[in-house]
Amino acid sequence: MLKKIEHIGIAVKDIAASNKIFEDLLGVAPYKEERVASEAVITSFFQMGESKIELLQAIDDTSAIAKFLLNNREGIHHLAFEVDDIHSEIERLKSLGYRVINEEPKEGADGKLIAFLHPKSSNGVLVELCQDKKV
Amino acid sequence: MLKKIEHIGIAVKDIAASNKIFEDLLGVAPYKEERVASEAVITSFFQMGESKIELLQAIDDTSAIAKFLLNNREGIHHLAFEVDDIHSEIERLKSLGYRVINEEPKEGADGKLIAFLHPKSSNGVLVELCQDKKV
Repeated sequence: MLKKIEHIGIAVKDIAASNKIFEDLLGVAPYKEERVASEAVITSFFQMGESKIELLQAIDDTSAIAKFLLNNREGIHHLAFEVDDIHSEIERLKSLGYRVINEEPKEGADGKLIAFLHPKSSNGVLVELCQDKKV
Repeated sequence: MLKKIEHIGIAVKDIAASNKIFEDLLGVAPYKEERVASEAVITSFFQMGESKIELLQAIDDTSAIAKFLLNNREGIHHLAFEVDDIHSEIERLKSLGYRVINEEPKEGADGKLIAFLHPKSSNGVLVELCQDKKV
């Protein structure tokens, strides 16, 4: 079950410059920056109610964010929902005909297990499922 | 002050078909549909935690959603934040150099006063401010 909007991911070219913009806009500073080597991104997170705004800058050309910015302007990249059990949610959505990009969840930023759905099956929205990693 | 993500607006071509997709994805039915004549859109709203997902279909070619879909695929259109006092927030953001599209707030869907910021000043993100209409 999808419980809430966990975060909204925004692709940016220069995270230092964008941190300043979003700090002005949101009225709060980022509560952390994190380098996610497996995704080749630097991220920063801003708390906004029960959700977060995540800025993402590519570290190198292998990053999905670098590829996104080849074809798109800076802007909203993905929409992430919190789930309790990512494996059962992947099975549920597959059974409904959704294309799941990561059938086996992978490690994401901010202590999460994550999996993406293909935007083709969700009206062009790149949807991410997020589950807190069990200790 | 921005308090929370009020909603995420998604531009769709066929709201009936998309209602079905998002009902499957989110696991909840839309809690309302609303025609907003001033914006020339039909909208539907899904509750997701403290936020909402808003689908928007154009009624005619004058709609901002129709214009968006001329240049973009279906997908996320805007990101809306709840504020207590939209007039003071507009002044705050103008003083920080943000380009405010609606210097005088207008009536939006779902009982809100709304104003948009130009995406040029917020990394390509079309930001909406929303305030509950005072009774």
